[in-house]
Amino acid sequence: MAGSEIDLAIIGSGAAGITAGIYAARRNLRVRIFEREALGGQSALAIWIENYPGTKKMKGAEMMEQWASHLKEFGVEIEEANGVESVKKAGQGFEIVTDGKEKVKAKAVLLATGTENKHLGIPGEEELYGKGISYCANCDGPMFKGRKVVIIGGGNSGVTNALWVSEIASETTLVEFLPELNCEEVYLADLEKSPIKVLKNTQALEVLGKEKVKGLKVKDRGSGKEKEIPADGIFIYVGLEPRNELAKALGCELDEKGFVKTDGKNETTVSGVFAAGDLGSGALAQTVWAAGDGAKAALAAYDCVRKTGN
Amino acid sequence: MAGSEIDLAIIGSGAAGITAGIYAARRNLRVRIFEREALGGQSALAIWIENYPGTKKMKGAEMMEQWASHLKEFGVEIEEANGVESVKKAGQGFEIVTDGKEKVKAKAVLLATGTENKHLGIPGEEELYGKGISYCANCDGPMFKGRKVVIIGGGNSGVTNALWVSEIASETTLVEFLPELNCEEVYLADLEKSPIKVLKNTQALEVLGKEKVKGLKVKDRGSGKEKEIPADGIFIYVGLEPRNELAKALGCELDEKGFVKTDGKNETTVSGVFAAGDLGSGALAQTVWAAGDGAKAALAAYDCVRKTGN
Repeated sequence: MAGSEIDLAIIGSGAAGITAGIYAARRNLRVRIFEREALGGQSALAIWIENYPGTKKMKGAEMMEQWASHLKEFGVEIEEANGVESVKKAGQGFEIVTDGKEKVKAKAVLLATGTENKHLGIPGEEELYGKGISYCANCDGPMFKGRKVVIIGGGNSGVTNALWVSEIASETTLVEFLPELNCEEVYLADLEKSPIKVLKNTQALEVLGKEKVKGLKVKDRGSGKEKEIPADGIFIYVGLEPRNELAKALGCELDEKGFVKTDGKNETTVSGVFAAGDLGSGALAQTVWAAGDGAKAALAAYDCVRKTGN
Repeated sequence: MAGSEIDLAIIGSGAAGITAGIYAARRNLRVRIFEREALGGQSALAIWIENYPGTKKMKGAEMMEQWASHLKEFGVEIEEANGVESVKKAGQGFEIVTDGKEKVKAKAVLLATGTENKHLGIPGEEELYGKGISYCANCDGPMFKGRKVVIIGGGNSGVTNALWVSEIASETTLVEFLPELNCEEVYLADLEKSPIKVLKNTQALEVLGKEKVKGLKVKDRGSGKEKEIPADGIFIYVGLEPRNELAKALGCELDEKGFVKTDGKNETTVSGVFAAGDLGSGALAQTVWAAGDGAKAALAAYDCVRKTGN
């Protein structure tokens, strides 16, 4: 812990934030990493990560613990369950108030708050959240052992979650809006071999159930026919949206989808404020990319801090 | 080996090329990776890599072997000692001739040829190359055990190489042109504890010796005084320059320093030609960043290949 006057405040501890922390600490910046939830961001929610070079297969949460331990070698610990309530320009730097009401002065700020899972916005989704609706099969999947599960979304997240859920569920259905799945091809063969029923070109219309999820009403977009799929659990993987509240509060310019615009060196339109990882408009939802982006942002923030003196 | 009609030709097998290979293979592209030298690029020349998240400390060459083994899981082997002699647009795609004179057709090309060490251009440097002048202490350092060594360049490469060379050399001198070293601060403490003599603000003027290196003539840029440092070996780490011959031959636009310009999706100004890693104008000389950039480029190349159909 670097005290309440620091060089760089990193907000968020996913792949981008942790890597930025490693780079900043190795440059000897006084750095703190604030994390509202638990460490690891979206990477920690991945069941398996199989494409981080050098690591053939590892649970996402385990990988992020390993990274945090690497970071700790340089004297920095992630402050879990201590997010940033507010941040504003103050003099040459920034004033931060943490969720724990601590005031921290920082010369530069690196936003690495990432994304959260998009909601579909269909009837029943909000009402039945936690009652069968979930955005994290890795967290909530096990409670549907021997039961019927629907996964919505045919990207990598949807498909990999469907694959493992199908090993414990009595029935697994994968629903994709588009005519084709958009996951990596490597998973298509696994899908073929699995008991998963795949419904492409299918729109989710409504979550059925009162006290708990009973099923999902869908429409075949080709024939226009509607039908009900019985389900005890529904996991939704239909994309990510940026956690941009702090960026907005700071006055950073956003792109049309709400991601933070940065220049070639990860600086936002507000001088001294940097963004890295999936919060930025280049968001790729890939651990290795977010890490590289975090490294780049930290080196740019270092230059910025050194330029401003001390 | 994916045959002589492929989807994506990756040229270069450093951190960017290998990661691009992993991503392309997982997307089921028919991909080949051509490498003129040995696998691993600049990363494999690093003595130690200590800032690749999750791996606290590993020899660069070992890390790259590990990555190549990861890549092999997806059926792709790096074709070492088989570079690309020429590549040109042909119809909808590209025609490649390898150093082994094989003709390969590819729908898209990913240039990941990286950089090589810059030369100083001082008298004696070219003439005594291999006779005491080297650009890779990791390769050639051991032959200077018990002898006098000068390292030119105070960035991370120069300093980390000076540190390990000082463990075997009888005398080690580090020469930096600027008034301050530009390595990560984490190494400054190590330098203090080492027997290395550091000369800052000092210009290298001439390599001394006829048949072999005898020393280095330098000038103190403050006082203007010149002096000769006796040396048996001189290692030069004064920056990197892009290996852009193929990019030039393809007609890709370069920036003022010769790095390849790309758009936000790593495509060069030539449609179907992508660039990743330190060959591109964002070059950071960091393994994790190059890897992330390779992943991004491969996903963009995938979209390009799929768009052009089969």
